[in-house]
Amino acid sequence: MTGLILVCDFGGTKLSAAVIEEAAVNEPDAAWRGHLRRLSPPGASAQTDIEMMIGMGWELLGGERPSHIGISFGGPVDYQSGVVRLSHHVPGWENVPIQQLFADAFHAPTWVDNDANVAALGEWRFGAGRGVADLLYVTVSTGVGGGWILDGRPYRGATGMAGEIGHTVVDPNGPLCLCGKQGCVERLASGPYMAHDVALARGLPPEEVTGQLVAEWAAAGEATAVAILERGARGLGVGLGNAANLLNPSRIVLGGGVTKSGERWWQWVREAAQLTALPEVKFDVVPAQLSDDAPLWGAVALAE
Amino acid sequence: MTGLILVCDFGGTKLSAAVIEEAAVNEPDAAWRGHLRRLSPPGASAQTDIEMMIGMGWELLGGERPSHIGISFGGPVDYQSGVVRLSHHVPGWENVPIQQLFADAFHAPTWVDNDANVAALGEWRFGAGRGVADLLYVTVSTGVGGGWILDGRPYRGATGMAGEIGHTVVDPNGPLCLCGKQGCVERLASGPYMAHDVALARGLPPEEVTGQLVAEWAAAGEATAVAILERGARGLGVGLGNAANLLNPSRIVLGGGVTKSGERWWQWVREAAQLTALPEVKFDVVPAQLSDDAPLWGAVALAE
Repeated sequence: MTGLILVCDFGGTKLSAAVIEEAAVNEPDAAWRGHLRRLSPPGASAQTDIEMMIGMGWELLGGERPSHIGISFGGPVDYQSGVVRLSHHVPGWENVPIQQLFADAFHAPTWVDNDANVAALGEWRFGAGRGVADLLYVTVSTGVGGGWILDGRPYRGATGMAGEIGHTVVDPNGPLCLCGKQGCVERLASGPYMAHDVALARGLPPEEVTGQLVAEWAAAGEATAVAILERGARGLGVGLGNAANLLNPSRIVLGGGVTKSGERWWQWVREAAQLTALPEVKFDVVPAQLSDDAPLWGAVALAE
Repeated sequence: MTGLILVCDFGGTKLSAAVIEEAAVNEPDAAWRGHLRRLSPPGASAQTDIEMMIGMGWELLGGERPSHIGISFGGPVDYQSGVVRLSHHVPGWENVPIQQLFADAFHAPTWVDNDANVAALGEWRFGAGRGVADLLYVTVSTGVGGGWILDGRPYRGATGMAGEIGHTVVDPNGPLCLCGKQGCVERLASGPYMAHDVALARGLPPEEVTGQLVAEWAAAGEATAVAILERGARGLGVGLGNAANLLNPSRIVLGGGVTKSGERWWQWVREAAQLTALPEVKFDVVPAQLSDDAPLWGAVALAE
């Protein structure tokens, strides 16, 4: 008889949960004992989502009590207190004590962290970062965020804000970001911003262009899409090279939808990163290995 | 009877050494039992410098054997092996096994690290970083280099190269740096580069302008000097803000000659750093407290 780990992922509109036996975690083909994914109802409150997720947990556990709980939250969380931070990113969730609510509901020790930190942990424990003591994980998606493993453990910073590579500045004369600065990595490299820039340049309605379309058009050779995608990839690369100069991680793992933009995108990112880093600062830049379930696997590592 | 710590600082043309009693280190007014500073003879080889330094050590120890040795080296050192790295920064020193040579000469456990890491350790243990678990120390001098304390211990990176904030890029359209990139922090903010830019802009012989003169001229209101000093300070500030977004240290400590450039310089640096960091990323930017003896105090912390 072995304990059960319950893991949950609050991913915006998607709620995912899974259960795995503690003893199974270290097996080469570790698999979920059960797995559920549901859409959050449109306009759902934080309370509704949490009640749904707790229900999914009990459904998966089938009456058993979990030994540990790990939770990935798609927004800013204070890891120490397990409470969602004040922020404009997740309206209605501010100050929700997720950790407490789950610990009370299941009477089990619970850990919560933001999705980037959880994904860093997951890739390090189960994915592209295995065997490495120092890594930077970056998700390049609707936003750009990151998480660190340093000296073989998660590093969250003095107040849990470490990893905000998306809002490092790589071109002070670049386009204006919603954060108020010019030329942030996120402004250049995230899917929605690239889509916005291509729509603007081509005179298309913004709602008709997505990051994925930009990648497809670039692959087909459309000049504007190529230029915007390259600018984004190189901007990200400069940000990664700067991070490498500052922290000297041995590996950088990239996940998120924008990383599916083709081999050229990876070449631009890698080239700019290597050119920005000093010659003595060595690292590789590799794709994340855990795909859709990355937050859940990361939450397993968090719960451990 | 308490052990004696021998500390040494290879600071380019200056060799410094000191001895302190282990029991004295934690006293409020800890003082050296002995202290020596000598100039390295012009054109001295690495061997000459090391022999001089070992001689200074024995002179200070007066026949006693040290319990521990800490060494600060003004160039790239591999902390694990205690050997000077291959680099164009310190000709003649490549591959010199400093740690081994001192350990053999004094029969005492010896640690060596580069001056930026040692200064970070010193400020954290004895200076402006006391009581803080996460700090970035940056020296702004003839070069710009840094060292980290993260989660209450020195962080050196996967291969000891962490802290190279001087070669992070903050303006890809900025002036060309010797490292081959444009708009590195060091290219904008270091004393010699600012002096070079002012000399060029004013048509003066480069050898007649120094970083200190730039600061003096700026204080007197000379427009070119003000502009170059401000550009350097703001470039450094962006680099610090980027570092804060990435690692979320609670304090940034600045040392080195350029930090003596007056209150306006500090205002520019702080303003750019705060504007670059996200509003949730809080930190203060403060002057180093250990002055000339900083490397020696850092070496005490290293030896401990």
